[in-house]
Amino acid sequence: MYTDEYFMRLALKEAKQALEEEEIPIGAIVVQDNKILARGHNMTEKLNDATAHAEIIALTAAFSNMGSKYLPDATLYVTVEPCVMCAGALYWSKIKRVVWGASDPKNGFSRVKPGVSPFHPKTEVVSGILETECVQLIKEFFRNKR
Amino acid sequence: MYTDEYFMRLALKEAKQALEEEEIPIGAIVVQDNKILARGHNMTEKLNDATAHAEIIALTAAFSNMGSKYLPDATLYVTVEPCVMCAGALYWSKIKRVVWGASDPKNGFSRVKPGVSPFHPKTEVVSGILETECVQLIKEFFRNKR
Repeated sequence: MYTDEYFMRLALKEAKQALEEEEIPIGAIVVQDNKILARGHNMTEKLNDATAHAEIIALTAAFSNMGSKYLPDATLYVTVEPCVMCAGALYWSKIKRVVWGASDPKNGFSRVKPGVSPFHPKTEVVSGILETECVQLIKEFFRNKR
Repeated sequence: MYTDEYFMRLALKEAKQALEEEEIPIGAIVVQDNKILARGHNMTEKLNDATAHAEIIALTAAFSNMGSKYLPDATLYVTVEPCVMCAGALYWSKIKRVVWGASDPKNGFSRVKPGVSPFHPKTEVVSGILETECVQLIKEFFRNKR
């Protein structure tokens, strides 16, 4: 069954890949008509690029795969609430749905204007999918760091 | 003399390149110690990528040139006020200064929370440099479109 939980598990798989590469473990998947358009995980350390977030990597790959700079029929699944940059990128993509697992009051987009959506007015936003698993990975990363 | 106007003229040159390529004419330059680290212009149409803004292209090139994911001693010059995505990217870069020409109440970062900066607290923000020339290019683009 193709549920939000099903696709979030695939985003979690990407996040685990980031963890193995000693990156902050955040993963993202772009899906359309139950098919995966793109995958991405955080690569800021590997690429030495502060913009190489899971969402940006997955979006750019999805644009490339679709040959289009808009994704009005796609859903992006990401394990952690998007930051301001990623929320802005999702706005430009005109993506249909954004689904995340763990909220992130410190670095998520809500740090700039809590309660107001930076996403496109047509974008549906869903949060809290597999939240425990998504948070767990982040905790594991920072526990290993200490 | 290396002034903000001097470097903004180089950003304008990038914007003119975008205009020639039938892109919304926005250009950016990253400078450190009066040396140019990177240049970029809007390539959203060419790359079919809604995230291919001048600032993102210039930042990614600057990270690559410096072999660092932070740019605490650099300045980014851009002809138009950064959008939410680009402001978020500049936040992550920890860049020293952000300088823009024309303000952009419709698409600039201020559309989300006017009056509150999404930039890093240490980042100095300057606006209005060669504003007339920067606005002129945008007007020219939209006049040609009609």
